[in-house]
Amino acid sequence: MARGCASPRASSSRCCRSRTAAGGKARRRTDSAAGSRRATCSCWRSLEWSPLRRERKARLLSFHRAGKATCPLRAGATMSTRPPMRPPGSVPAVLLGFQPALALTGALCLQQNLGSSSPSKKQSKENTITINCVTFPHPDTMPEQQLLKPTEWSYCDYFWADKKDSQGNGTVAGFELLLQKQLKGKQMQKEMSEFIRERIKIEEEYAKNLAKLSQNSLAAQEEGSLGEAWAQVKKSLADEAEVHLKFSAKLHSEVEKPLMNFRENFKKDMKKCDHHIADLRKQLASRYAAVEKARKALTERQRDLEMKTQQLEIKLSNKTEEDIKKARRKSTQAGDDLMRCVDLYNQAQSKWFEEMVTTTLELERLEVERVEMIRQHLCQYTQLRHETDMFNQSTVEPVDQLLRKVDPAKDRELWVREHKTGNIRPVDMEI
Amino acid sequence: MARGCASPRASSSRCCRSRTAAGGKARRRTDSAAGSRRATCSCWRSLEWSPLRRERKARLLSFHRAGKATCPLRAGATMSTRPPMRPPGSVPAVLLGFQPALALTGALCLQQNLGSSSPSKKQSKENTITINCVTFPHPDTMPEQQLLKPTEWSYCDYFWADKKDSQGNGTVAGFELLLQKQLKGKQMQKEMSEFIRERIKIEEEYAKNLAKLSQNSLAAQEEGSLGEAWAQVKKSLADEAEVHLKFSAKLHSEVEKPLMNFRENFKKDMKKCDHHIADLRKQLASRYAAVEKARKALTERQRDLEMKTQQLEIKLSNKTEEDIKKARRKSTQAGDDLMRCVDLYNQAQSKWFEEMVTTTLELERLEVERVEMIRQHLCQYTQLRHETDMFNQSTVEPVDQLLRKVDPAKDRELWVREHKTGNIRPVDMEI
Repeated sequence: MARGCASPRASSSRCCRSRTAAGGKARRRTDSAAGSRRATCSCWRSLEWSPLRRERKARLLSFHRAGKATCPLRAGATMSTRPPMRPPGSVPAVLLGFQPALALTGALCLQQNLGSSSPSKKQSKENTITINCVTFPHPDTMPEQQLLKPTEWSYCDYFWADKKDSQGNGTVAGFELLLQKQLKGKQMQKEMSEFIRERIKIEEEYAKNLAKLSQNSLAAQEEGSLGEAWAQVKKSLADEAEVHLKFSAKLHSEVEKPLMNFRENFKKDMKKCDHHIADLRKQLASRYAAVEKARKALTERQRDLEMKTQQLEIKLSNKTEEDIKKARRKSTQAGDDLMRCVDLYNQAQSKWFEEMVTTTLELERLEVERVEMIRQHLCQYTQLRHETDMFNQSTVEPVDQLLRKVDPAKDRELWVREHKTGNIRPVDMEI
Repeated sequence: MARGCASPRASSSRCCRSRTAAGGKARRRTDSAAGSRRATCSCWRSLEWSPLRRERKARLLSFHRAGKATCPLRAGATMSTRPPMRPPGSVPAVLLGFQPALALTGALCLQQNLGSSSPSKKQSKENTITINCVTFPHPDTMPEQQLLKPTEWSYCDYFWADKKDSQGNGTVAGFELLLQKQLKGKQMQKEMSEFIRERIKIEEEYAKNLAKLSQNSLAAQEEGSLGEAWAQVKKSLADEAEVHLKFSAKLHSEVEKPLMNFRENFKKDMKKCDHHIADLRKQLASRYAAVEKARKALTERQRDLEMKTQQLEIKLSNKTEEDIKKARRKSTQAGDDLMRCVDLYNQAQSKWFEEMVTTTLELERLEVERVEMIRQHLCQYTQLRHETDMFNQSTVEPVDQLLRKVDPAKDRELWVREHKTGNIRPVDMEI
């Protein structure tokens, strides 16, 4: 039973069904998610679970089908910030001596249970602890739990509890922390895109100024091979401008835009996740309230039965005998009600658990995708920067070539040929 | 005599003296000129000249010493644009039958000369042609002239004549064309410096923008290895800014400033050259005017002598005999005067010639220096551009390194360790 307490929500075959359904949803959420579905599914298969729970899970599932919550409002936000229904650490009063195994057979020996109640009650009381409507194994009697994905610091393993919020007067669901992380990630990505946009503006401005200077007529009348080299110096600025314009254009299409587009899908995904988990948590809370109500009714029925049994011992009347039979039936009925409510609660918790695992794994995948995607686009940025430097180098080469050809003697020949006034030297005047 | 007409203004030894003197002046003009003095001197030695003229040159030089013009005004500009004193192609009326060789001995046989004057006059008339006070060999009887620097398209060989200016109503001295070329060169250099200054401004602006963006807080909250890579992306912009600032600083100190400084010396050099040659050309004009005046006086004296000789043939009186003697003395005196004026003119032309050769060679050297200097600084520009691209590359390397280290799993571990809420999974509620 110790290992059985490690919550095993799915059989191997159910896993595949459940994952397929979740996969179907995920596919609708993000187009990019489709490729990695099979891999995630095999992760799921590797999750540890106890075969002892298989039969029970199958029963719980059949209940679950009808109870699926479909709250259209963003209930999660309300839920995650509402105060806990009971403070963490306080154990809900479980039925005194009520034993589900006996209840299932329809027979109840209250006397026996009440007589030697302490160890059984205590044990029952200390086996679980319900915090914010979620039931955990009790710290004092906590069974060994293997992490679902022991080596991966997976989101699905570390966010089961709620957390006191920063003001200390409320709690934040673990899932909400993950969502905030994802939303912050989205914001970071958006800001990176904006940063790249700023860089693009700088490049465009730089290119504009270089191109303008390139058109400047300064020293345009320089002649000969020096004039050619100088013209190339000026032309090289236009080439540089072109390189920086291409850089900025590619930054736009290959870095800025993809970063901004990814963000949009991401936001939609997060909203869907948020709604879904919030709805399930809401259902869990209402089922928990039903359990509490049924538990209270059973307690009343038991007290009534106990009272009537004591009266029988004193009076021994037939009327009382009938009353006791009636009270026992009602008590048994209340026990069955409680059992059904607990089953429904456990079904809801099981569904929430499943969706928590599915969705946190999806968030984890999306975060890996986000980091990889950003990394890839920043690599693209450095690649473009690299190419820009390379292309920039090439704008200097023709200048260097023409500078190597600069020849003052050749330039003088060209100029003298064009401008010479006369090569006949003066001679002495004769008388 | 044909080769003798190639104007040989300096003996080999005088060349060295003259060049040394010119060199002394040039050294005062440009500090940078000192190194190449010896080389220019050997060029000078290689100039072709006729040893036949050596003796005469020595005589002319002694005259020249006293007649050095020192006009403080920029007379050259006035001179070069004034209309020619006689239209090109018209030969000045040389003394009829006056033979300098006879004049030097002090004996003059006018009858003989006048009797068979035609061939001698014609020959004398067609040997030279004076244009704008400069005397050239006559095109019809032009002797062979070897270029001073036959293979070099040297300034000293091609700018002896004046040129009609663009409006066609004046002339521009050949030397003035060279000066204009040099001044234009100076202007080109100044404009290149200004162009580089504009480039510097663009680099400074670019660097400023990159540095500013680098300080931007966008996506500063990105965490983990991706956060580190992103921080490096931003830091790399500051590095790039630094690279471009260094580029602009080096452009200023190693390209813009040297180009501008050189220009200042250059301008001073040009002014000195301009004044010097203009003064010599002015002196040449005044000496030419003196020659014309002396030539006119001699013509009058000769006419007087001829008239008196005719009177003697008719009257045969003693009184006329005395008159003839007196007229002959005056004619001889006028001949000597003309000869002295022609000598002074030739000295001035010789000095101008020398200075033209010296100065045009100096201009040529300065132009080579200018082209080489600009070439060198444009090479420095491309070198700095090259280095900038290299350094820019290096700003991307740390980014690439950190991008290679980006690890979504590691980042998740860091984040989960810090933010996890609880790894105890929920269990079924028991009744």
